[in-house]
Amino acid sequence: MSTSPGDTVTLSLEEAFDLSRNALLGAGLSAEQAQAVAEVIVAGQRDECHSHGLYRLIGCAHSVRTGKVNPVANPVVVDTAPSIVKVDADFGFSSFAFNKAIPLAAEKARQQGLAALAINNCFHFSALWPEVETFAQQGFAAIAMTPSHSWVAPAGGTKPVLGTNPFAFAWPRPQRPPFVFDFATSATARGEIELHRRAGTSLQPGLAIDERGIPTTNAAEALKGAMLTFGGHKGSALSAMVELLAGSLIGDMLSLESQEFDAGAGAAPCHGELLLIFDLAKFLGGALNDNLARAERLFDAIVTQGARLPSQRRYEARQRSRKYGVTIPKKLYDDLVALINDHLETSDRAISERT
Amino acid sequence: MSTSPGDTVTLSLEEAFDLSRNALLGAGLSAEQAQAVAEVIVAGQRDECHSHGLYRLIGCAHSVRTGKVNPVANPVVVDTAPSIVKVDADFGFSSFAFNKAIPLAAEKARQQGLAALAINNCFHFSALWPEVETFAQQGFAAIAMTPSHSWVAPAGGTKPVLGTNPFAFAWPRPQRPPFVFDFATSATARGEIELHRRAGTSLQPGLAIDERGIPTTNAAEALKGAMLTFGGHKGSALSAMVELLAGSLIGDMLSLESQEFDAGAGAAPCHGELLLIFDLAKFLGGALNDNLARAERLFDAIVTQGARLPSQRRYEARQRSRKYGVTIPKKLYDDLVALINDHLETSDRAISERT
Repeated sequence: MSTSPGDTVTLSLEEAFDLSRNALLGAGLSAEQAQAVAEVIVAGQRDECHSHGLYRLIGCAHSVRTGKVNPVANPVVVDTAPSIVKVDADFGFSSFAFNKAIPLAAEKARQQGLAALAINNCFHFSALWPEVETFAQQGFAAIAMTPSHSWVAPAGGTKPVLGTNPFAFAWPRPQRPPFVFDFATSATARGEIELHRRAGTSLQPGLAIDERGIPTTNAAEALKGAMLTFGGHKGSALSAMVELLAGSLIGDMLSLESQEFDAGAGAAPCHGELLLIFDLAKFLGGALNDNLARAERLFDAIVTQGARLPSQRRYEARQRSRKYGVTIPKKLYDDLVALINDHLETSDRAISERT
Repeated sequence: MSTSPGDTVTLSLEEAFDLSRNALLGAGLSAEQAQAVAEVIVAGQRDECHSHGLYRLIGCAHSVRTGKVNPVANPVVVDTAPSIVKVDADFGFSSFAFNKAIPLAAEKARQQGLAALAINNCFHFSALWPEVETFAQQGFAAIAMTPSHSWVAPAGGTKPVLGTNPFAFAWPRPQRPPFVFDFATSATARGEIELHRRAGTSLQPGLAIDERGIPTTNAAEALKGAMLTFGGHKGSALSAMVELLAGSLIGDMLSLESQEFDAGAGAAPCHGELLLIFDLAKFLGGALNDNLARAERLFDAIVTQGARLPSQRRYEARQRSRKYGVTIPKKLYDDLVALINDHLETSDRAISERT
């Protein structure tokens, strides 16, 4: 760890992980949940997805404090059908439940060719790319999607109904990190609008409408009104699909319902998640390697004309972070240390009360 | 059938079907292929998707004339894995192969919870909504996607690599027609640009770039350059996913390869298609009806604020067409009748040669 004059702290990935896990233990999470959540959060920081990095620990701690999140959740994996695995996250964060369900989902995909993994009753704070990337590293292609809270108006409408509803995909590449994308079906992230509100700066046009349904660049008005989907009616349609597949199909909440469930607590959204896992070997048999090579033609044709693959920046950041560690604001570092100390004090008190 | 002073012809759906089937027979298609293709084309006309209506018969006939399409294709359904059905379309049009594979795909979805249906080596001329709607009418949710020809530049690029790559989805609704969408991942349809070129009118901005990669509203320049994806980098990512899942995963052509295969013949694009079929009952068990009802809350929240569901216009058109028939230009009608007469003359000649 090193502090710099610019009020930042640089941590190795190991230090960032220990800090994150200890902060989550400090917030009251069980050791297993803290481990799973810390892994995803450090992956976000490592890849310089700052909004999904160590900053999120503060939100996770808040979500626990609201009493909504179960800090000692014990996810239960259910073999629902030959091609369906469900895991009930027991109202904990999604990451621990996801980790528990990976082996059965992978086994089913290998046997059937295709499997669905549904996570139910989970609180969501993380990006979806770490999950699809996990499957791609095992040679699968994967899709993931989740509803969120009803902050987004459908195309042609003025009132929020849809969530920011992210959609992610990964494709394995021989001898290279997988092709991965992960985007919100809203035109921008909720957090982005919140940052503009705090900074008093204007939004780009086309991202949001006010309470009367009129386009606005005022962040405070946008937060009271509704966000828009990306890509007009097409993004809106895709977002509705996410509600139906990662909500209704898996017996979990729509973004509307998730918002009601939160009841103003401001916790991470509670809802389900759907992953689809494709076994390339089962689809392609002896033609697997030939088709993996043909897929590389697509990536080559994109990269050689100077366009970027969606995951390229993250992988570059990952290389940097492995070498030089990650840098976070000193203020955030202090807040996380305070979470740990709160916990230690509570533990000390508990021990002294018992002795 | 009735002709009007405005140079149009109005046909009942039965008449439109007979005309279409006979025109396809005239073009040389086998009875089974002509039947399957005519059904899809009349469905397009009925729902007032004019670019996928009877007008397409001319393109189908041209595709057969190029020698690329196999007019007597005999699709073979293969039980590839517990959750995978493949059907080799034998280089015929996709519709006949699709129809042949429906029963096994539906059975697999019911047994496994989830099934993939891959159509290989097929020529594509139709929209995807008739296919996902077919499954939704049987109570399934379904996704469909296909590559096309490499006409579309990736986000940040200037050269065409991606296809117009449509993506479709259907969700069954109790006592109502299903929720269905079907959109191109390109910002507009290729045919739309072609229409502007012929009319000498300008494109809307944001749809295409010229050969140098500079945004253009000139349709001729756009056709020489590249189309853009909808929704910037998000639409571009989704389009790449379609290439990988409905191309590489199923061992079929990327849009780049399909374009090369066409070799300037201007036939319908030859490539694969992927459908994913979800059995709601297997996912939800006893909670099926409750979750179907909860999904209706989403549709209600969209419709009651005055926004439109993506399939709404088509269903309204369908009602009209069932009542009043469909109206096509007299010129198109005459061209289709000419196709039939060519065939009759050829048959007569064949008979007289034999006798």
